[in-house]
Order: sequence, then C-alpha cells, then structure tokens
Amino acid sequence: MLDSEIRDLTPVFEPRSLAMIGASNNPMKWGCIILMNILGYGFQGKIYPINPHEEKILGIRAYPDIRRVEEEVDLAVIARPAEATLQHIEECVEAGVKAAIVIAGGFRETGEEGRKLEEKIVKIARRGGLLLVGPNTMGVYSAPVNLRALMPPVSPVKGEVALVSQSGNIGTNLLGFGSTVGVGFDKFVSSGNEADIECYEYIAYFGADPKVKVILAYLEGIRSGRRFMRVAEEVSERKPLIVYKAGRTRAGVRAARSHSGALIGSNEVVRAVFRQTGIIEASTVNEMLDLAKTFVRMPLPNGRRVGILTWGGGYGVVASDAFEEAGLEVTSLTEDSLRELDKILPPYWSRGNPVDLVGTFDRQIQPPCLDIIARDKNTDIVVALGFIVGSGAFAGSYRSAPWRKEEEGEIVKSWLSKADEESMNVLVEMVRKHGKPVVAVTLTTDMDVVRRAAEKGAIVYPTIETAASVLSKMVRYVEYLRKRSKLRRVED
Amino acid sequence: MLDSEIRDLTPVFEPRSLAMIGASNNPMKWGCIILMNILGYGFQGKIYPINPHEEKILGIRAYPDIRRVEEEVDLAVIARPAEATLQHIEECVEAGVKAAIVIAGGFRETGEEGRKLEEKIVKIARRGGLLLVGPNTMGVYSAPVNLRALMPPVSPVKGEVALVSQSGNIGTNLLGFGSTVGVGFDKFVSSGNEADIECYEYIAYFGADPKVKVILAYLEGIRSGRRFMRVAEEVSERKPLIVYKAGRTRAGVRAARSHSGALIGSNEVVRAVFRQTGIIEASTVNEMLDLAKTFVRMPLPNGRRVGILTWGGGYGVVASDAFEEAGLEVTSLTEDSLRELDKILPPYWSRGNPVDLVGTFDRQIQPPCLDIIARDKNTDIVVALGFIVGSGAFAGSYRSAPWRKEEEGEIVKSWLSKADEESMNVLVEMVRKHGKPVVAVTLTTDMDVVRRAAEKGAIVYPTIETAASVLSKMVRYVEYLRKRSKLRRVED
Repeated sequence: MLDSEIRDLTPVFEPRSLAMIGASNNPMKWGCIILMNILGYGFQGKIYPINPHEEKILGIRAYPDIRRVEEEVDLAVIARPAEATLQHIEECVEAGVKAAIVIAGGFRETGEEGRKLEEKIVKIARRGGLLLVGPNTMGVYSAPVNLRALMPPVSPVKGEVALVSQSGNIGTNLLGFGSTVGVGFDKFVSSGNEADIECYEYIAYFGADPKVKVILAYLEGIRSGRRFMRVAEEVSERKPLIVYKAGRTRAGVRAARSHSGALIGSNEVVRAVFRQTGIIEASTVNEMLDLAKTFVRMPLPNGRRVGILTWGGGYGVVASDAFEEAGLEVTSLTEDSLRELDKILPPYWSRGNPVDLVGTFDRQIQPPCLDIIARDKNTDIVVALGFIVGSGAFAGSYRSAPWRKEEEGEIVKSWLSKADEESMNVLVEMVRKHGKPVVAVTLTTDMDVVRRAAEKGAIVYPTIETAASVLSKMVRYVEYLRKRSKLRRVED
Repeated sequence: MLDSEIRDLTPVFEPRSLAMIGASNNPMKWGCIILMNILGYGFQGKIYPINPHEEKILGIRAYPDIRRVEEEVDLAVIARPAEATLQHIEECVEAGVKAAIVIAGGFRETGEEGRKLEEKIVKIARRGGLLLVGPNTMGVYSAPVNLRALMPPVSPVKGEVALVSQSGNIGTNLLGFGSTVGVGFDKFVSSGNEADIECYEYIAYFGADPKVKVILAYLEGIRSGRRFMRVAEEVSERKPLIVYKAGRTRAGVRAARSHSGALIGSNEVVRAVFRQTGIIEASTVNEMLDLAKTFVRMPLPNGRRVGILTWGGGYGVVASDAFEEAGLEVTSLTEDSLRELDKILPPYWSRGNPVDLVGTFDRQIQPPCLDIIARDKNTDIVVALGFIVGSGAFAGSYRSAPWRKEEEGEIVKSWLSKADEESMNVLVEMVRKHGKPVVAVTLTTDMDVVRRAAEKGAIVYPTIETAASVLSKMVRYVEYLRKRSKLRRVED
C-alpha cells in the first residue's frame, strides 16, 4: 500500500498538538462547541485556540494568529466561514501545520463559485504539504489520542471499528448509536467534500492501522475509481471493508449531488466493483453496525450451514425461510447429535433442524442443546432464537397485566434479566469452545439486551432478518477470501 | 360472505359464558395459568371451572363435569392432554356447548396416530354443532368482552386490529409487542392445527366485524385454497388484509410441517393468490405491526408521489434511494412551494425534494416547511426525517459525554422530549388538514418515541426502510382497489 498515492494521515488522526482556528467563548458558535467537545473528551496533546480578539478561550491562552504559536502544530481545526478559509489555509501553510480540518460548507456543493474556491484552497494546501479534511465536514474522532474534534457532542464508546462517512449526520449518528447497540469506535472521519483527502486514502490508512479490525464507509460517490478499487482490494484481504452505498437511484443521485456534490458512478459499475474487491455491502445504514459488531466478535465461519435452536416452532419456520432466502443452508444434524438431543428433549420433539424446544419452560436444557448443535460437524454457524429473551419488553407487557402487582412484574424482570446474563455467558463460552459463530436473536423489541450482550462479547440481533443478512454476508466474505488465496497460489 | 361455508364465530369471540375444562389450583398447570389470565382481564361473562376433584378453583365454584353446569355454556376452554380430549369433546356436545378451544398439542403435527385422533374429534364436534378452535393452540383474545383465554400472560392494548396466527408464539408475541410500538388489538386467535375452523373463516368473521379495521394473519399453510381466495378477495375490498406467509423455502416448509402440520402450497401459487386477491404481504413478522398501525391511523394516499423533509442531507439521500427502490416516486415540488420555502429557509438551500433543513437548529421552521410540502398538489405522501428526534437514545450518548453533568443530559432529554411531543401534534394536525399520510422516521434507535407517537395518533417509523416498505404497500393496495372498482363498473 505504501506508494506515492497514499499519504500518511497520522497528523489527522494522531496529532500531538492542535490549533482551533475560530475558537470562541460564545456557546452558540461552532468554534466554541467543537472546542468544548475537544476539551471534554480529554485530548492528549497540546491545544492552541486561535482568535484575534480574545486573550483566553474557555480558560486557555489564545493566539491571534496560528503563525504566532511558538511550538509545532500538527492539526488545525478551522471553524470559520467559507470566505475566510483561503486566508487561514495560507497561514497554516506558512506556520508549517501538517493537516487541517475545514468545517465550513459553501464550497463545491453550492455551485460554480464554491467549486473554484475549493480548488484554490486545495492547490495551496497541496503545494504547502498540508493535508486537508473536508471542507463541509463534521470533523474527526480518534480514540488513541482522545481526539473528538466533532460538531455534535456524541461520545463514542472506544473499540476496534473505523468509519469514514460522506455524510456528517449519518456518521456522527452512527457513533452515537454504536453506544446503544454495543459497537465501539477507534477512528472516525466525516470526509465532507473530499476536496483533498479522498475516501480511498482514509480506507488505506485504516487498513494499515493494527488497532482497526473492521472498516465502515458511508459513501455517496467515489471520485478516483481506480485507486479506490486497488485500495479496497488490498484492504479487504486483511480486514472486512463494509460499505453502505447511497445514491443508487435517480432520486438518490439527485439528492446526493446537492448534498456532498460528489460524482457518482453508475450503480451497476459500483456493484461490480464491490464484488471484485471483496467489499461487503450493507443493506441499510444501521446494518453497518450489526455487521461491524459481528466481524469484531465472531470467528469467520467455515461454510454456510446453519444450526438453529428455537423456543417456539413458528420462529423456527420464519428463521428457516429467512436464512435460506439469504443464501445460507439450514443443515441436517448428524445422527449422533439427534441421539444426544433425544436424551434431553421430550419424546415428541421433531428430531430435525431447527431444534424446537417445544415449549419447555426449563431454561436449564437450553445450554446443553446449544452445545450439541455447536459441536455438530454439520454446522458452521449456530443461531439461538428466544435463548436471550430481553426482559424489558416482556416485563412491560407483563407489568400491564391488571391481575399482577407492579412488584411481580419487577420480580419477573429481574429473574429474566439474570437468566439472560447467564445465557450471554453461555454464548461466549460456545464460541470459545467450538470456534464458530454462535449468536442469538431476541424476539422482543428490547434493544437494551442487544447492547448488554455486546458488552459481554456476545452477539444478539434485534431481528431474524438482520441475523440472516449479516451472517450470509460473513459467509460470502469468507468465500471471497478463499477464492483470492487460491488465485494468489496460482499466480505464485 | 354469508353463505353455508362461513360459520358464525360469535361463540368463540363473544361468548356470554365460559367453562374451563381442566381448571386447576396448581400454578404450574395450564389449567390454572389460563384461568388466571381469563380472570385477570375481567371477562364479562360467567365462568365455570370444571374439575372432578376440587370444590373451588381460584375461589370459584367448580363443577365435576361440564354436563353438570345448569346454565348454557357458549365456550369451553379445554386444557387437558390430547388423549383426554375426545371424551371432553363428547361431553361438550352433550352439554350443548357452542364452541371449544383445544389447547393440547399431540395431534396431526406428531404423525399418523395424532392425525387419526384429530379427525375423530372434528367428526364428533361437527356432528354436534360444536365449533372447534385448534387443537395445538395458545388460545383466543377478544376485547369487546374482555376475553383473554391465552397461555402466556400478555396484556394487549385494545384497538382496531384483528390477528389470526398459525403460530401461538408469534401471535402472542405480536400482541405483546403491540403495546410497545402502539398497536391495539380487538381480536386474536392462535388457530393451531385448524382441524375444524380454518384461517379463512376467521378472516371472514373479522371482515364482517365493524369493530375491526385491519386484519393480520401469520400463515404457514392454507388448506382450503379456493375458499381462502374467495374470502380474501371479498374482505380485502372492505379492509386491508395483511399476511406474513411463512414456509416460503424448502427449509421453511420442512420446519412448518413438524410445527403446525399444515399443507403448504407452492410459493409461486401463494404469491399469485396474494396479488389477485389484494392481500398485502408483510416482509417481516414485525412489519405486520407497522403496516397495521399505518392503515389504522392514516388516510389512503392518492398516489405514489412522496415529499420529504429532512434534517441532514445524508438521510435525504438514503430516503430517496429507499423510496424509489420500493416503487415510490420522489416527486418535484411545485414552483409555488419552492417560493414559499425560499421565504423560510436560508438562501443556500437546495430548492428541491428532499427539502433539506441544512443544519438549521431552529425547530420552529420545521412545521411551516412540513405544511408547505403537505399542501403541495404534487405530493401524495409526506415523510419527515429527524422531525421526531427520540430523546432517549440521544440523551444516552449525550449524557455519557464526560464534560457534561448528569443534570444537563436530563435537561436536554426533557427539552427534546417536549419538542417531540409538539412535533407529534403537528403530524396529527397535518394529516387532518391535508387528508394525506404525513409520517415521520426517528433516526435514533429509540422505540419509546414510536409508541408515544402512536398513542397520540401519529406514525413514527423506526427506520427509513420500514417507511419505504410500508408506504409502498399502502400505495399498491390503493391501486388494487382502483383496479377492482373499475372492473366492477365494467361488469355492471
């Protein structure tokens, strides 16, 4: 990857010092809000507020001009209107700053005049060796140095996922949702108009970063198609590269044009590129998080054969349909497994896959059943339905039962909650023991159980359809890797 | 609909008196749990527990045998093992009972012997004029008489939706989830093996019931295809009939066979039947609730043209793609509307649909923008993204910001929550004023806001994709109705 086209983005993501141009004491200004976000997250380097009219900003000594800062500045965050940007970029170059984040909109996305201004800025920055994030960006987040140079006050949980987003709203929302569904982030950039640094460079940088295990990208357009392809191909051999591609329809392209001003390739071309380069395409924005979590926590499956444990026959049918429609295989269990299950389950059980617990109340029989299915050599992936109940939603409908006392609802809730905790531990243990993905689906609308499970290292999906989509994409990624490695062997 | 094949199910859904055969004081027995559920919901008719060994059950005078009850019994709930059922059915017939719910499994779904037993029971019941629900059922719920003869202690919110489910678990779970997403039920039956009453009869009954506005069905198999079709065709002209069809794949059919023992038609045939009869197919189990809620609350749209208000350009792109891919049209607004919007929005707004609020913080400008889009003669449906924020999830990520005090998070939460309440009122007002669907999508994972909105009569979807799928199905239903009415005019 280390060639002349791929620049080192360390000054953007791991700066040792930072200047805030347009820093302000007025809490209605971005120059104040962003600086508060930076200070509040405990950035580990030095901070230099730049403001010609103030002595101090938020209690820190301010400088009238970035050229007056005595020490070296790695990163400048510029929160000033578009028309002032040119001057500040020139000052940054003079001051030897290594990278700048240009927050303001009002460039290419607004028309011809903006496009010209943007080109001017890029020219000056490139000539001066200044890396440029944006313009029209919501900023950068980086866990290793506690950098949160963002517009909204989201607080990502730290983790192993990196995200580049061509939409600031969607990107920062994903950081926030991450903490509600149990996805932690190592790095994030709202790439804005990508006037200088394009998405493929961020992806290359994340690809080379050992702290990053999974890369996510929300993309509306890809400018440098060839470079993007080469980077995607190299990166996705090392770690999963998950993309949500917006602007797939005429209406979507129209909306994207006025939003990020990005150039859009035809949808067919984009899809072909994804297939060839091993990119995993997310079906929805939120599915990016489900995919990320799964790739971080689960071993890669050896194949597409799924074993299912279900509490309730109907869900077994729904899951069988969903998995097969997604291209997975609802496998046959070995005769050995069936005999083992005979010893545990009532005589009238259906002796097949899905393994239906036929309404047994005894939660004690679930872990040994799961163990048998996970041990079976015919299964590559195991999914448990109703194994994690999600006490919140259940207790909610239970509590409202008029013949029950409020306290009884709470007792049931705490009992279910404890049982769920134990089940989460069982899931983690099964994965460790059998080395294949063993996951659960909560059949309630309780998102809290999804987050709690993730914190314990277990995967619980909110719906059967999510499980089907995510797991099938995992299988296809493995198949891609196998094809690639065969290819390489032939070429050697 | 009133022909000899469609029986009157009033004794099942609006019984004036009820006997519980197998009633028990032992809280580990279904004969106790179900009776507690019946008592707890305040059934309005008389209740006769039947148990040969007890004087009283749960404090109520018990009878040794249903034939010993002096008054007329409309409905018997039989919670006794399969092998005892035959005898109880004979007793019910002798006693002149009008309908029986047979809870036990162990019939056709378990093999040849069970099938024979089931046929015997049906023969006796039919000869004796006894309607039979099940066997292998989780029971019946009916709001008008406060009947909750169910196995699990779910407490449905009362409403205008009726549900027939061939899976007891899925059916009763849907009743429970309904209360967490704001869907109320008027009637429910877990139809079990459908040995006597088949799904088409329930649908016909719900179709003729003026209290029911929307019918839901979870189906694994359809036995009497022709009758089902005729009923579906007639019913769906009067009210939406929404079906989730399980058993679409080989694996699904296999699982269904051991579950409900139902016969399954080929998937192609089933789909063709749905198209011809106006049935609305739900893509997921949970989508049934989203569809139901929308049909209950929203007027039918006149066409497929959607106007979008978005807080954040990225979501505008995602929505444009999702709506177009679902077959809706992201329309052009009239020049009049654009000029009206010019007066409200900053000069750099994109003058197109989606109407992007370009990051304006001022929530006051959203209602007039929404009003302009909803008034526009080019829109049939209006969707607002980010208009309802969902304070829970946002406050969660906000609260965890280390530079914020806990109280500040709470202040923000309560402020957002209040703003959301106002926005919900605006949605309701827009629907009333413009007579077209005006809905919102929360961009957070906050399900609470979804429920609160429904209670106020407003529709908030959890994701953009749900909105796209539900609204496009609504449009297709309207097109079906139009085609039908043209057809009828030609025939006249």
